Amino acid sequence: MIQYRCPLRDFEFALYEVLGYEQHLATLQGPVTPERADARAILEAAAAFAEKRLVPINQSGDAEGCRLLDDHVQTPAGFREAYAQYRDGGWTGLSRAPEWGGSGLPASLGVAVTEVFATANWSWSMYPGLASGAMDTLEAFGTAAQQARYLPPLVSGQWTATMCLTEPQCGSDLAQVRMQATPDPAGHYRLNGSKIFITAGDHDLAENIVHIVLARLPDGPAGTRGLSLFVVPKHLPNVDGSLGRRNGVRCGGLEEKMGLKASATCTLHFDDAEAELLGEPHRGLECMFVFMNAARIGAGQQGVVHAELGYQNALAYTHERLAMRAPGGNSGPAPIILHADVRRMLLLQRAIAEGGRLLVLEAACLLDTAAFGRDEARGTAARDRLAFLTPIIKGFLTELGIEAADLALQCLGGHGYIREWGLEQNLRDARIATIYEGTTGIQALDLLGRKVVRDGAQAVQREAQTIAGSCERAGRHPQLADAARTLRDELFRWVAMSESLVSDAGDDPLVVPAAATDYLMYSGYLLLGHGWLRAADAAAGAIAAGCGDVHHESKLATATFYFARIFPRVVALREMIGAGPEALVAAADPALRPAEREPSGPPIAAMSRA
Amino acid sequence: MIQYRCPLRDFEFALYEVLGYEQHLATLQGPVTPERADARAILEAAAAFAEKRLVPINQSGDAEGCRLLDDHVQTPAGFREAYAQYRDGGWTGLSRAPEWGGSGLPASLGVAVTEVFATANWSWSMYPGLASGAMDTLEAFGTAAQQARYLPPLVSGQWTATMCLTEPQCGSDLAQVRMQATPDPAGHYRLNGSKIFITAGDHDLAENIVHIVLARLPDGPAGTRGLSLFVVPKHLPNVDGSLGRRNGVRCGGLEEKMGLKASATCTLHFDDAEAELLGEPHRGLECMFVFMNAARIGAGQQGVVHAELGYQNALAYTHERLAMRAPGGNSGPAPIILHADVRRMLLLQRAIAEGGRLLVLEAACLLDTAAFGRDEARGTAARDRLAFLTPIIKGFLTELGIEAADLALQCLGGHGYIREWGLEQNLRDARIATIYEGTTGIQALDLLGRKVVRDGAQAVQREAQTIAGSCERAGRHPQLADAARTLRDELFRWVAMSESLVSDAGDDPLVVPAAATDYLMYSGYLLLGHGWLRAADAAAGAIAAGCGDVHHESKLATATFYFARIFPRVVALREMIGAGPEALVAAADPALRPAEREPSGPPIAAMSRA
Repeated sequence: MIQYRCPLRDFEFALYEVLGYEQHLATLQGPVTPERADARAILEAAAAFAEKRLVPINQSGDAEGCRLLDDHVQTPAGFREAYAQYRDGGWTGLSRAPEWGGSGLPASLGVAVTEVFATANWSWSMYPGLASGAMDTLEAFGTAAQQARYLPPLVSGQWTATMCLTEPQCGSDLAQVRMQATPDPAGHYRLNGSKIFITAGDHDLAENIVHIVLARLPDGPAGTRGLSLFVVPKHLPNVDGSLGRRNGVRCGGLEEKMGLKASATCTLHFDDAEAELLGEPHRGLECMFVFMNAARIGAGQQGVVHAELGYQNALAYTHERLAMRAPGGNSGPAPIILHADVRRMLLLQRAIAEGGRLLVLEAACLLDTAAFGRDEARGTAARDRLAFLTPIIKGFLTELGIEAADLALQCLGGHGYIREWGLEQNLRDARIATIYEGTTGIQALDLLGRKVVRDGAQAVQREAQTIAGSCERAGRHPQLADAARTLRDELFRWVAMSESLVSDAGDDPLVVPAAATDYLMYSGYLLLGHGWLRAADAAAGAIAAGCGDVHHESKLATATFYFARIFPRVVALREMIGAGPEALVAAADPALRPAEREPSGPPIAAMSRA
Repeated sequence: MIQYRCPLRDFEFALYEVLGYEQHLATLQGPVTPERADARAILEAAAAFAEKRLVPINQSGDAEGCRLLDDHVQTPAGFREAYAQYRDGGWTGLSRAPEWGGSGLPASLGVAVTEVFATANWSWSMYPGLASGAMDTLEAFGTAAQQARYLPPLVSGQWTATMCLTEPQCGSDLAQVRMQATPDPAGHYRLNGSKIFITAGDHDLAENIVHIVLARLPDGPAGTRGLSLFVVPKHLPNVDGSLGRRNGVRCGGLEEKMGLKASATCTLHFDDAEAELLGEPHRGLECMFVFMNAARIGAGQQGVVHAELGYQNALAYTHERLAMRAPGGNSGPAPIILHADVRRMLLLQRAIAEGGRLLVLEAACLLDTAAFGRDEARGTAARDRLAFLTPIIKGFLTELGIEAADLALQCLGGHGYIREWGLEQNLRDARIATIYEGTTGIQALDLLGRKVVRDGAQAVQREAQTIAGSCERAGRHPQLADAARTLRDELFRWVAMSESLVSDAGDDPLVVPAAATDYLMYSGYLLLGHGWLRAADAAAGAIAAGCGDVHHESKLATATFYFARIFPRVVALREMIGAGPEALVAAADPALRPAEREPSGPPIAAMSRA
């Protein structure tokens, strides 16, 4: 059976000992800023709910899955009850404005709490999770009437919401969206068409579902600039807020997926569905992208989630399971955690889970500042930094989260491969993370193309300065001098590599796409290294001040491991990037022809440099 | 729907253009050695059966799974019929001695043919696959009476067989086996106890199943030296060969696994089961290990299988799916194969599938020579080389096979995550490969501990000489000079690293376990580089001779890709190995304590260097 204990100590360490959360909160104007004891109490309450209510329905939800009944989707046993308790506990409005019934706490605390629920049961957490982006969009672009109509029941959790983008012919490339929106005589719009892969597109947890839908107006230009956003409630609300008649949107099918089986992934058919325009016509994609950073950081958090869950369970197993003599041990079989390779796998998982948590919480603090910074300069700086960090956090942490989940399974040997222990499910659930909310390849193009090349590597240089400062501070602790030097030396190479990509990209349009994914991973290992160095610095400081504990010692040990056994991956990535696009171009024609089919001709020819 | 076309051209390229298969066969004494046209005809027949009969029941088998009925296991629809046709086609005896009804062809051809069936349907192929090791064991250690009783029905496929090793408390560490074997008054033995994870432990494809079981005699010493092998047929055969009464062995449960759902993984309960001793008492493990190389190469082949299947399907999809403008292309959405990162993922899969195939077929030729080499020196050399290569082929190719299957899924984006396309199943099926038949960690200890350190790195030096010869030959083609130099330079570092590990291992028992897995991967990238350099050499030679084709051009392109974008991983691995065991030891106490549990104390303390 899968187990989960909320790592409260590590949340506190990350927030208060590394990120200076109290000072951070003092810079915000707007949100309710909790005292440390209050934040702790909120995390403890989340932990209690997650451990007692969400963990027990994690594996059963996977086994049972969702069912499409005549007119709605049925979630697995216990999901409704857990949602009702969650909603009644006020969790849906934790970091929403009091104006709409929320508690007004900062986004950062919301992100921390989300990790707890999500680790306990990722599939379940997607039902309330999807409403977040919809509420952001309504808050920013809704009319006063739309906000009054939709925000209170969404903030209270009485209703949930979806984001409807993907269609059968397009996912990453939304320029190909075909969903039609036609004005009707009553001043509304009518939507016709189908959307696929809609998370929480239908379910039985809430009485109503508000769909935010990307569609094309009749006079919209082709491509992404012709797309508009619409609000399409499952049940049309009456003027008094009560539920009116059923709208023309229905779930036509559920995907059979590798994992996330308890999360309903729906095909939605819109059949003359009554819709309201949200925001300005033809600017739908821009509206959606305003909240892309928050959504992608939420998706990046999934890497932390599956690394943490896998690690905790693998750790427990490897303490119990006996096999072979330990090096230097006596003759009997030893707990397998004593075997070096098992330790290597566990430390890798821990480095990803805890290091990733720090990066996600740091980004969450930037979300706070971007929205509620006391001064404009600080807000702008936060938004710029966030824009740079987001694709790395999403792309890199999800890749490493899958690696961690995979190693957790491996730690259990054959038992990892069977359902009972929950670690094969953890890997299956994790596997989607590098795909949705923009694949790793898409994140990589966003990072290298827009956030580095188009930016002239200015954001890289600013980030490098920040990291260099951490290296200098950490280097004062003698036991961290090596790690600080390793990171600082690599920093120079990273900046140089970034600048040379900026300059090469002008000459050759293949430079960016050929290097992008390796560059994203390279940047990720640097950022994670920054996280581990700061964690070690904080730990060394605490120990030097005489208030060190076992968590501090473990931070030092894990940081040592990170720089010795994970960070060297940057060297390989640098070489691969340095190889340039030649190898991909050389292989253009012959190597990628489908076996024993006629040569495809034109499309392949287009790859060569004309 | 999953598709598969047998890569006949690549089999011929690997066997005849790279490995010199005709010359190899001429060195054998014993097996029937096929002409090239005959070998081709056999592969074509295997392809026809695999494509028409096994592919269509691959996804349906996964969806349906196996069922445990009252007294036997029911396989998914179509499995029985396909097995009957396979058996009637004589495939079970392809490389078995004519003495027992086989066709007497060399093991190497059997390995090639196995890849074809296994790629079409890995789960199905495990039912006949498991009999192979059992037949090897009976041929080598059975009495004449046992051979006459069991080999003919196994070779004809009328019966199948299993290998029963694992018990609930032990997998890798067979010293902990508890299954009891007690002599009975009739001169037989009685087995009592349970085995788990028994592939094809029960099913409805054949009328009888012969279990080869590891158990402990009453007078056996503790540990692995007290284990003996036993033959336990499901139905006891009568003197005339007909089936007699049911023996005391029954399937008590089927594992619910991540993948391989159509393959029955059984718990077997032995309840006073009548057994015959196989081979000498207390030497059971030695007997099993005689065939470990063959079994592990078969398991390593699974990496090739899932890389090939994923690659073929991802390739087809990426030619059809349209998204975004291609670099240098016109404005409309392009087939995604034109995007550099998609090409990178596809070339990686291809490099693993085709490069891995070459390594497996080379090892298979060594199996031939080990068993049927014309002179003893050649046989000994083949056995020694095989012993060295086997853990690398098993450990490295299965790790890379999973990576390839993972990237194939990624090429399809969201569609990769849903059942319909078969690529999530391919990853689920692939995932077991680094676990069974010895985990990667176990292979790594075998390689670095036994085959390098205990050997004084002699095998490494011999292998390096062979590779150096290939570098010299390939370097004569100007377009391969860079790749040849890259590989040769790395070769020196590999030998130096190996020798330094040999010398350090004497001083510190943690050196080998801390470095083993990274060393195995390092060695794997070298061997795969050797494969790609030889493939490119053969291709360049054919092109220079005026008989080049598109397959040759693709070999050159894929080799270029391999050295530019995969091979640099060796640099990172070298750094990680060079970091030594310090980081794992430093983390010994604090970092691996289970969260919020009492410290475990003694076991962790045993890890530190006392």
